[in-house]
Parts: sequence; structure tokens; C-alpha cells
Amino acid sequence: MDSEMKRKPIIGVIGGGECTEEIYKIAEKVGKKIAENNAVLICGGLGGVMEAACKGAKNRGGTTIGILPGNNRDDANKYVDLPIATGMGYARNIIIVYTAQCLIAIDGKYGTLSEIAYALAFNKPVIGIKTHKIEGNLEEAHSPEEAVEKALAKLNE
Amino acid sequence: MDSEMKRKPIIGVIGGGECTEEIYKIAEKVGKKIAENNAVLICGGLGGVMEAACKGAKNRGGTTIGILPGNNRDDANKYVDLPIATGMGYARNIIIVYTAQCLIAIDGKYGTLSEIAYALAFNKPVIGIKTHKIEGNLEEAHSPEEAVEKALAKLNE
Amino acid sequence: MDSEMKRKPIIGVIGGGECTEEIYKIAEKVGKKIAENNAVLICGGLGGVMEAACKGAKNRGGTTIGILPGNNRDDANKYVDLPIATGMGYARNIIIVYTAQCLIAIDGKYGTLSEIAYALAFNKPVIGIKTHKIEGNLEEAHSPEEAVEKALAKLNE
Amino acid sequence: MDSEMKRKPIIGVIGGGECTEEIYKIAEKVGKKIAENNAVLICGGLGGVMEAACKGAKNRGGTTIGILPGNNRDDANKYVDLPIATGMGYARNIIIVYTAQCLIAIDGKYGTLSEIAYALAFNKPVIGIKTHKIEGNLEEAHSPEEAVEKALAKLNE
Repeated sequence: MDSEMKRKPIIGVIGGGECTEEIYKIAEKVGKKIAENNAVLICGGLGGVMEAACKGAKNRGGTTIGILPGNNRDDANKYVDLPIATGMGYARNIIIVYTAQCLIAIDGKYGTLSEIAYALAFNKPVIGIKTHKIEGNLEEAHSPEEAVEKALAKLNE
Repeated sequence: MDSEMKRKPIIGVIGGGECTEEIYKIAEKVGKKIAENNAVLICGGLGGVMEAACKGAKNRGGTTIGILPGNNRDDANKYVDLPIATGMGYARNIIIVYTAQCLIAIDGKYGTLSEIAYALAFNKPVIGIKTHKIEGNLEEAHSPEEAVEKALAKLNE
Repeated sequence: MDSEMKRKPIIGVIGGGECTEEIYKIAEKVGKKIAENNAVLICGGLGGVMEAACKGAKNRGGTTIGILPGNNRDDANKYVDLPIATGMGYARNIIIVYTAQCLIAIDGKYGTLSEIAYALAFNKPVIGIKTHKIEGNLEEAHSPEEAVEKALAKLNE
Repeated sequence: MDSEMKRKPIIGVIGGGECTEEIYKIAEKVGKKIAENNAVLICGGLGGVMEAACKGAKNRGGTTIGILPGNNRDDANKYVDLPIATGMGYARNIIIVYTAQCLIAIDGKYGTLSEIAYALAFNKPVIGIKTHKIEGNLEEAHSPEEAVEKALAKLNE
């Protein structure tokens, strides 16, 4: 049973609850690639980038966790396997950052910026695609594939 | 893919971080029975009752979520598949209550009492084994099997 | 300036957001007595027992802090001097318990029970008037005056 | 009593727990000016910029609130009148942002950046001195006096 006990890596995807079609496609590919690499996806569980990433991961048979701001599991998008209802509003962002071993930030506004800031404060690596540019442990990627590859590389550092 | 999308029920197990051998065995059986019924187990992720329940669930190939008080995934007992690091201390108890669709309380002290109280405040059913007696939607069970059967029945109400 | 720096004691009042007239009067007297003894009152900032206690304290020129579940200071009852907006829902109960040096529980349902449970878990003294009966460091008082006297005595232990 | 009931404005000061002497002096002046204008100061309650601002405010007879990450009121710097112990770690940053009607950011690293990001997400005005430059409702000030004047102006908008 010991081998079963080895935990899968958990990768976080952060980004806005609304996004353009272009960003949605990027996030979906990120989700696919996370699942193909046998990692668990954690995100905020709502729409936009979060939904797209979950959709991609489920399309490849992955596991998806949604850390919800509200207290109702039904708030989760339909691609979330495990809706975690926090009832803590924006404070739930911190849980995503603490739990993920590496974060991929896609697009996003101030909510995403707060998550990037927390990640950098906690020395958690962040890979960014078309998102905020902040000095620190935030590395840029130019494609969904590159983003997940860089994230996986960080896990093994 | 739609049938895959149907979420598994999530059952919470609450109880102390330390317990007697008798209580440990009860919690382990509760965990086994939860997994046998294809439900996901959520708990506080630490020792005692939480560890025993996770151990039982993993023994039957179940999925276990640990909502940790600290910010380090390594705090989780070794039977937790998905360690959720909250960094919020005791406030994490509320997340377990919101997320579980039914709770099984086993033994436990004041931390467990706070979780039972929250469950009753949120109209979430609680099945108790050898735990606090509180007026309200808290039903007693006299065996691990009965506890899980009652919990599953609540899910279908 | 050193003497000014000495902090005033902070006493918590916990109880339901709705209450009978009889309970309202008791809570108001508790608030008065807290202020007369130069202690700061902390509570959940909403209606019922919380409002009554704040009203009593302001009537005697005291200071009142309301730890609000929502993110809007305007949710506070009008007798709260310092509305602290947490946006964390029920998780804010824990802040009241950590911050108060002693708690007075008046009436109340499951929310109040969760606060009493946290207080006992944290070894924080609780004085109860017409509230839940729990084994542990929960002492009963039979009048508002007795409750505050017992709370003040706990501060000096 | 109605006029007493009118709440004082609450201004937040955010910045690092460690800072240079130059930044300490700036923060102290900000605190003085907040108190001189009869506003309440809220901050994270620890050292560095937080301590300096509280020291300045107390020097002018102001009221200071410290929203602490830990569960122990004794963690507060000695210029905090009202230590609010949250036990929620970094999640306490959000409480400062929700509670303050305007924020003054001084220097600071990623923790401060997360607070600025939350403020902008919540449409809460931020005045910055020698801090991060972010697009959005973040206005720069070049002196402590200017910062507080701008903050007070925001309150009346």
C-alpha cells in the first residue's frame, strides 16, 4: 500500500472568474497538461480561468479541487470533483497558495495579483502566462505547455 | 463524460487528535465503511480519530482529504491523499463542516464540540458515536457501521 | 505616557442575533457594568444580545468593538464604535474568543455554543447567564452584575 | 448621545514588519497626522512600519487597533491599544483592508503587495509612499502629511 500512499503533486491555477476566449483556451490546455502529468489541479472553483483549467483536466481524467469562497458546494463549476466550501470569501485565496506546490497564474486582475503576492511572500514558485509582472520568484511562460513543464520542474527542485 | 462528472458524496469525520485504542478502532471502521460506499472522507488531517478514519478509508481504496490548521502539507497524517493547508488554525474547522454533506463525530473534546455546534448552526446532519450529547439534529449511532449507514441515509433525504 | 499605554481589559459578550426582551435587558446591564468597570466590550457587532450589550456600554461611555461576519462596516449595530469587517462569516467567532480575555455568554443557540466550545478549547474563562450548560471552565452567573464581577475576577487570576 | 455615536473614520497603515530608520520616521509621522485628524489607526499590530505608525498615533493621543496574525494579544507592539488576535495568519491582512476606509501603504514587500491588491480588488482607495507601483486606484504621495491629507480627502468623496 505504500506506493499508493505517495501523494500526487498539487498544482494551482489562478486567474480571473471571467476571461476572453483566448485566455479560456490557454487555461484549458494548462489543465489538460497538468492531468496528463498525473498532478492534481487546485483552483478557486468558479468560472473563467478556473473553469477552463478544470475542464481541461477532467478531459484527461485528472482530479480537480475547487476552494470556494462561499459556503455552498453548488457554487463550483461543473468540472470540479472536490468542492471545498470555505465560507471565508477572499481569504480562501491563501489556502490555494499554501496548498499548491507550484502556481500557474493566467491573466487575472487584482484577486490574482493578491495570490501572486502571497505566493512570493511564502517562497512558493509561480509561473505566469499573460499576467502581472512582479519582481521575484515569478517566471514567465509563453505557452500552456511551457508553463506546466516549468511548474513540474519546480516541484523537483 | 457526464457520468464521470457526477460528484462523489463527501462525508466528514470529526474527533480528537488523540484518542484511546478503542476509539481508534471505531474511527478506522468508520473510514473503511465510508470508502466501501464510494464516498470521499474529509477530516482535519491530523492524528487520533482523523488518522484512524483516513487509514481505514485508504485500506479500502478510498479518497481522503485533510483540512490542515497549519500552512505545511507535511503536517498531514500519512493516510491523507489531498492535504489542504489553510494556515488558519482552528478556523479551518468550519471548512470541514461546510464541505461535508454529513458529519460523523467520534469521541472528541471542545474542538469537536465546536464543529458539532457549527454543523447544527448550518443545519448539517451529524451522527455521533461516543461523543457530546447536544439537543438538535445530532443522531446517535451505536456502531461504526450504523453511523455510516445513517450518514448515507441523510445524504439521500 | 506609560500609564496611558496600559491596555484596558477586553471582555467579550456572546449571544444570539435575536433575543427576547428579557434577555435584551440582561445583556444591556452586562454592557453597562463592563463599561463602568473601564473594560472594553467586544462582540459580534450585530443585533439581539450584541446590540443590547453595546447599547449598555455606550450608555456608560464605554468602548465597543464589533467583529462583523460580513465585509461591510455598515452591518454593525449603531452602538458599535469600532466595526471590524472580516468578510469571513462564522469564522469571525474565533477572533472574538481569542481577543477577549474573558467571555460572558448570554442565552444563544448553536453559534454561541461554538464560541463557548472554542473558549473552553483555548482555556479562556466563560461566565454563562441563561445559556448552554457545558462541563469545563464555564461558570454560571445569576445576574448581569454577578456575571461581570466574575469576569473581572477571572482577569486578575 | 447621538453625536458621540458618530463613528470616527478608520485609516489603515500597511507596510513591512521590518524597515529602515528613514521609513520608520515616515510611518511615525503618518501615525501622528492620522491621530491629529481624529481618525482611528488600524494596522497589523506588529513591528516596523506598524509599530512606527502606532507610536506616532499614541504620541498624539490617538486610538490604535492591531489586527494580529497570531492568537496572542501579547504579540502586539506596545503602542497598540486594542490588540485583535485572529489566529488566522496572513488571512488577517484582508480584515485590515475591509475595515479601513482608506489605506496608506508605506514601503513593504509581498505581504504589503497582497494588501494593496486586495484593496484594489475591493475598490478601496490606497495612498502609497515609497511602495509598489500598481495600476489602479493607488495614488502616490511624497510626504507623510500629503499621504494623510489625500487619505482624508478620499473619505469625503
